[in-house]
Amino acid sequence: MSMDRIFARIDADFQSHLDRVRAFVRQPSISGEGVGMAEMAELLRETIVRLGGRAEIAATPGWPVVWGGIDAGRPKTLLLYGMYDVQPVEGEEWMVSPFAGETVTLPDVGPSIVARGVYNTKGPLAGLFNVLETIQRADGRLPVNVKFVIEGEEELGSRNLPGFIHAHRDALAADATYFAFYCQDRHGKPVLWLGVKGIQYFEVTCRGGAWGGPRTRGVHGSNAVWIGSPAWRLVRALATMMDDEEEIQVAGLRDDVISPSAEDEALLRTLAETFDPATHLWSWDAERFKHADDRAALLRHYLYDPTLNIDGIWGGYTGPGMKTLLPHEVRAKMDVRLVPNMEPEGVRARIRAHLARLGREDIQVHFYEGYPPAKTSLNEPVVQALIRAIRSTGREPEVWPHLAGSAPFYLFRRTLGQPFAAGGLGHGGRPHSPNEYATIEGMRLFERSVAQFFYEFAGA
Amino acid sequence: MSMDRIFARIDADFQSHLDRVRAFVRQPSISGEGVGMAEMAELLRETIVRLGGRAEIAATPGWPVVWGGIDAGRPKTLLLYGMYDVQPVEGEEWMVSPFAGETVTLPDVGPSIVARGVYNTKGPLAGLFNVLETIQRADGRLPVNVKFVIEGEEELGSRNLPGFIHAHRDALAADATYFAFYCQDRHGKPVLWLGVKGIQYFEVTCRGGAWGGPRTRGVHGSNAVWIGSPAWRLVRALATMMDDEEEIQVAGLRDDVISPSAEDEALLRTLAETFDPATHLWSWDAERFKHADDRAALLRHYLYDPTLNIDGIWGGYTGPGMKTLLPHEVRAKMDVRLVPNMEPEGVRARIRAHLARLGREDIQVHFYEGYPPAKTSLNEPVVQALIRAIRSTGREPEVWPHLAGSAPFYLFRRTLGQPFAAGGLGHGGRPHSPNEYATIEGMRLFERSVAQFFYEFAGA
Repeated sequence: MSMDRIFARIDADFQSHLDRVRAFVRQPSISGEGVGMAEMAELLRETIVRLGGRAEIAATPGWPVVWGGIDAGRPKTLLLYGMYDVQPVEGEEWMVSPFAGETVTLPDVGPSIVARGVYNTKGPLAGLFNVLETIQRADGRLPVNVKFVIEGEEELGSRNLPGFIHAHRDALAADATYFAFYCQDRHGKPVLWLGVKGIQYFEVTCRGGAWGGPRTRGVHGSNAVWIGSPAWRLVRALATMMDDEEEIQVAGLRDDVISPSAEDEALLRTLAETFDPATHLWSWDAERFKHADDRAALLRHYLYDPTLNIDGIWGGYTGPGMKTLLPHEVRAKMDVRLVPNMEPEGVRARIRAHLARLGREDIQVHFYEGYPPAKTSLNEPVVQALIRAIRSTGREPEVWPHLAGSAPFYLFRRTLGQPFAAGGLGHGGRPHSPNEYATIEGMRLFERSVAQFFYEFAGA
Repeated sequence: MSMDRIFARIDADFQSHLDRVRAFVRQPSISGEGVGMAEMAELLRETIVRLGGRAEIAATPGWPVVWGGIDAGRPKTLLLYGMYDVQPVEGEEWMVSPFAGETVTLPDVGPSIVARGVYNTKGPLAGLFNVLETIQRADGRLPVNVKFVIEGEEELGSRNLPGFIHAHRDALAADATYFAFYCQDRHGKPVLWLGVKGIQYFEVTCRGGAWGGPRTRGVHGSNAVWIGSPAWRLVRALATMMDDEEEIQVAGLRDDVISPSAEDEALLRTLAETFDPATHLWSWDAERFKHADDRAALLRHYLYDPTLNIDGIWGGYTGPGMKTLLPHEVRAKMDVRLVPNMEPEGVRARIRAHLARLGREDIQVHFYEGYPPAKTSLNEPVVQALIRAIRSTGREPEVWPHLAGSAPFYLFRRTLGQPFAAGGLGHGGRPHSPNEYATIEGMRLFERSVAQFFYEFAGA
């Protein structure tokens, strides 16, 4: 098979390929708010069936998993993991409607689709289907069998994916897992990562009760003189968890952290040469890092430090002008990112123990489902196939030991016993933020790189 | 004049009197949100004109002041201070629509109007006009001349009242100021207070900037590992202002606090005998006080402690479910209540100095207009007239040295040089909270007591 014929076909059909991206982002699917989830699942099911595959919408206690496969009669099988949910847009200000799929020429990066989910991760998901369809048209059949597992709760911490994967271990057997994602930075450099951090999300609440404080409603602020304040108590309790240098003060939270492996150390040495801190600052709209700007040290903080973050905090009067109020309930949403060797159970135990040591019966904690980090070796055939696919475009990928972000890849690595790879060319940005975007030209490069990857993996 | 004829007239017209209360609360006038302010001011102006008075809506840099007077050709003049604005209802859950003026039979207190402002303070304001109208009908003319100054920014800290009062000092000359308010607790005991605390409201903000942190938008939460967090920084800065026992840690904030005067000490001795802590806990929906339950000690905390309160705190993701976010801006609304001898300038200086000592250029503070406390002596004729009016109904008022709440009465006491009194029979509750209410029967008692007060003051 000549890849040129496939690339020509991608170019010829590219406007209709963009239409699929737009159709995917125009269908809202906000798992946190329950908006458009059934419609998005059905759109995916139809898409797989039109490619000649089997597809089912499998119920879970939460949002369903869309799963199935296309049997091409090939010796090798790839499990294609994806997600169809996106983050809420509540409270965000966008330059265009976040679910309109509009094209905007952005400074620095050029013509892009600006929409919730276009980068994380409906753009790559739509592109993946574009590639499968293109190969079928140009080559008759796929070079590998594929299976799909596309969840609707990634943004909720993949809370029902473990149960699904565990229950379908045999049916999901494959040689490797692949997760489609745009991996070029804004300068075009492809970035590959061999793993992800884990995450433990939780909420901390202080409300009035037996200890004091207003129990069921905020009351006139003058009472703060003699009635306890849930707001002060939450602030005081949270403040014990972090110091002024933003070093975590929860005892034991770092206990399970291990030194980078020999393979990671080798990757870090190479990475420190090309790693560009300025690009990261630009991406995250910050003027400086918390730590000194030494590249090697920054990398170690970024990849091997667990994080304790306040995602949101709220309580009392937050409207315009003045209102004096003694609030009855104040809350914070928080998360810990888990680095290699940390487990969610250990994180929960350390947070609970920290709050218990405070001796504050007024502070309650609720843990969401958490998951551990996951890593794959550079030497796995699926990783090498992806690296060859990227190199074939004349670009040298920058390989990261893992990502600072989280994904439930432990399910593939640990539960299914499969190595995994994630990435592909393409560029996007501002996930979980207003004006999330992905570039049009990146979408074309993405499709070429993923097509090449399928053939590389088949021939490996 | 026989008071009986006036009381009979109140009873005969009481349904139409309630209609005026309903009309006042049905006209929203939320100064913090700019809702219905012009309409409410016009309603007041018309009401005064219909009573044969002069009335003007005087522009200020904020919401206008409604002012005027009724010259009854009497030797004595009362300045009637009032407010026509109410607190927002945003985010509150009410048993009835907060601006419908509905009557609900509440447990413990009986038939009541449940509406925003019916207690604080449109119910008493409407009742005051009912009394003036009733006296004119029953007695031909009022026993005292009255002047009105009714502001629309009390809930915003009366920020433009000082300028107005200062500019109209001569026109506002009177023998005393009176503020109409329901003063009975839920057991029927009348409570009078001879002063108010002051208040200094402010906002503390931490946002990303030169120090680090995301500058203009929240970014993916995984970046908390290496980019500074405005949320942690605000929490850490706030936590330095209070200890775990909720004792204020802002150096110097208590420096200007003085011991109770001899008159206050005498009032405190009497008060400690009738003061019922349980009623206060019930009113404010709390199970216990911050301090031990000794009545005399509690009273001293309540009246002579300055307060540092968090009215509201917010930032980042506060919607349902999970969203990982490193917020770019987190804010808190706060206030200090000023006890005798404290001045807003001193409070601002101590807060500024505290934040400066932290050396945190990432924390910004914005001060709203503040005002000092104000007190009147028990021996003032206007106070004695109100006490006699209440005693004439067979009830003994419980006299408080001052209130824990705040009002800009320093303007009457200090700027205009007038003694003041506030109160009247009647019962209401839950100011600044959902299901604010005032009892129907209390409204009748209020009108009788205020009519009696006018005659007592005239004859004193």
